[in-house]
Amino acid sequence: MDANDGFRELDRQECLRLLAEVPVGRIVYTRQALPAVLPVNFCLDHDGAVLVRTSASSELVGAIDGAVVAFEADEVDTATHSGWSVVVMGSATLVTDPAEHARLLRTGPRSWAPAPQEVFVRIDPELVTGRDLVGGRTLYGVDLPS
Amino acid sequence: MDANDGFRELDRQECLRLLAEVPVGRIVYTRQALPAVLPVNFCLDHDGAVLVRTSASSELVGAIDGAVVAFEADEVDTATHSGWSVVVMGSATLVTDPAEHARLLRTGPRSWAPAPQEVFVRIDPELVTGRDLVGGRTLYGVDLPS
Repeated sequence: MDANDGFRELDRQECLRLLAEVPVGRIVYTRQALPAVLPVNFCLDHDGAVLVRTSASSELVGAIDGAVVAFEADEVDTATHSGWSVVVMGSATLVTDPAEHARLLRTGPRSWAPAPQEVFVRIDPELVTGRDLVGGRTLYGVDLPS
Repeated sequence: MDANDGFRELDRQECLRLLAEVPVGRIVYTRQALPAVLPVNFCLDHDGAVLVRTSASSELVGAIDGAVVAFEADEVDTATHSGWSVVVMGSATLVTDPAEHARLLRTGPRSWAPAPQEVFVRIDPELVTGRDLVGGRTLYGVDLPS
């Protein structure tokens, strides 16, 4: 990490607060040994887990169920070169418990367009990292906290 | 891919035109066998390659030089649930040719905040895919074209 990379690391609570403010993030996973990325709408569970609602038959479910994935969201003001980026890293699992599924139907992410056989995928917040990009400082060349 | 996933696939030219409209995207790569994602400002080269300017000592350069990475950009209107997402997949290489480096100093991405020993990383547009998210249709549960 460069000394002059111009960001402030965010603590877990700040990261989760920022994540709660945006409706869309990106699931980053591996597909056929290559990196893949998919924008999704989401919400956070009470413990900071990322919840995504999708079709049971989607390729996404097969690709990420049981895998460690990253979930990224950011907001960047291109005028001031400021903003933030947060990454949640953890295991993605299909919610199979009927009671938990029922709870998420009430409290989980809403469908932007309902589909038959919807399921919920939960990304455990095993590692939550983020950075506040300081106005006028660099967005490039900085590395997410490892 | 679901029949009802509600997007229109974009051709390469549409993808590159959309990419050229936004200043920030995300490099998706593998770090220590885990998915990693990093927002960066960028520009496109004449052949559609993604150009990123960074510090020679950044962890990013070491992590992606010679690797196949994905580069994603998107714009989503959360009011209308419409927008687009584009992914460029290809080999990332550090630009080492002095003439090419000099050209990119003139025509490549600008620094948001200059750093010493800047280098350029080029992501070859080997596979360019994208989708136009149709207003009122779903963002979730759709898979990027494989």
